[in-house]
Amino acid sequence: MRDARHPDTPFWVEPANVSGDRLNLDSVESHHLVRVHRAAPGSTFDAVDGIGGTYRCVLESIGESGAVGRIVERWQGSGELAVPITMLVGLLDSGPAELVVEFGSALGATAIDFVACARSGRPPLAESRLDRLTRIARSAIKQSRRSRLPALRSSGSLAHALSGLGGERRLLADPGGVPFMTVPRGRLECPVVLAVGPPGGFDDGELACLREGEFDCISLGPNRLATETAALALLVIIRNALCSNNLRAI
Amino acid sequence: MRDARHPDTPFWVEPANVSGDRLNLDSVESHHLVRVHRAAPGSTFDAVDGIGGTYRCVLESIGESGAVGRIVERWQGSGELAVPITMLVGLLDSGPAELVVEFGSALGATAIDFVACARSGRPPLAESRLDRLTRIARSAIKQSRRSRLPALRSSGSLAHALSGLGGERRLLADPGGVPFMTVPRGRLECPVVLAVGPPGGFDDGELACLREGEFDCISLGPNRLATETAALALLVIIRNALCSNNLRAI
Repeated sequence: MRDARHPDTPFWVEPANVSGDRLNLDSVESHHLVRVHRAAPGSTFDAVDGIGGTYRCVLESIGESGAVGRIVERWQGSGELAVPITMLVGLLDSGPAELVVEFGSALGATAIDFVACARSGRPPLAESRLDRLTRIARSAIKQSRRSRLPALRSSGSLAHALSGLGGERRLLADPGGVPFMTVPRGRLECPVVLAVGPPGGFDDGELACLREGEFDCISLGPNRLATETAALALLVIIRNALCSNNLRAI
Repeated sequence: MRDARHPDTPFWVEPANVSGDRLNLDSVESHHLVRVHRAAPGSTFDAVDGIGGTYRCVLESIGESGAVGRIVERWQGSGELAVPITMLVGLLDSGPAELVVEFGSALGATAIDFVACARSGRPPLAESRLDRLTRIARSAIKQSRRSRLPALRSSGSLAHALSGLGGERRLLADPGGVPFMTVPRGRLECPVVLAVGPPGGFDDGELACLREGEFDCISLGPNRLATETAALALLVIIRNALCSNNLRAI
């Protein structure tokens, strides 16, 4: 009977509100737990902190400061891929950017940088816009039962975006490339960086920058894909390769 | 100079309006060509007929019945994958269904059947709804430079959807499966059928039906994916495998 009421989707808990074997949901999440799911002391629920922790809890009390849960089980990295994936996506319109965040978060992106490219024709995203995208990412993480919230940012140039990266496997969506399975696989155990141009594509200077950064050119098929479609396709291909890799390692 | 004005995206032409080396755009497409792209007699443009034909044209005249183009070059199957891909997607809400059509059309689906499953909780889509989805598909085909319009339908049950299919390679999105690369590849030269359950998943009767239909169970990764996300992920994986396959055959 307990499981019959156990909510299907975890609740969000700020990492600072997890302490020992207790956690404290904020007012919005508490309200959802108590009003929508009709949880009462003794009910169970799951919570996710966005930095890798998932917690099975028993609701202990509902007070002024929100619902308090007693942690009865915890997992680290639940629903996460074996290596981090950073997506550099040429800055694009709001609607497509939100789709990239929604689908990209569900599909395992660790970081998404909406890079203001030469052909993006606009400045990097403001903090308020990134906050809105972060709320979309948070919802996607909960729905998809991942445990890490992707870092969202918006670099002012591709050079700036690349300057912060280390020694990763780097892949560029490029119609002139080859499909992923035919590239010598290399080690997929290291972090992966994916780059997809803005509508209109990267310009020559940016492409030179990517060549210098040793990006492999990956073709995504015989027809033209919009930035958001290409970004998600490349992510799915790498996600699948990582999962296959893991399985072989077992 | 001519190329500077050549529209980047092809125009839609009904197959019945292609005859010999002339084609006739309808009033909406003609208006777009002439008003938005400021085409004049002698300007070039491309047109796509949705049944595999792409045409490079020189605008000949603009009359009562729309723009008439003289065909100077033609291609068959431009932007298409090597084999047809049918998607059986458990019927879902309008927004996600539209995303499946938009992304699925760009990514190479040949047919999409929104199957009214036991857990879809609604009747199959009405014709008016399919018409709206077809307009979305047509726009996606043009933007993505494919040449075949996917067939859109909505079967009343999974059994009915399966009854119309022949001897294809069949894949089911299933968290209990294995990643695609680890499945013995089999022949990817034959048509592919992908099945993805509705929100809530296929029920036991439907799963039995799929087992009987010899669907291979494909895991899409370590976390839960919404129907629309799973559908697009499975399509991308197969698309990439087909493209890699082709390359090896060259």
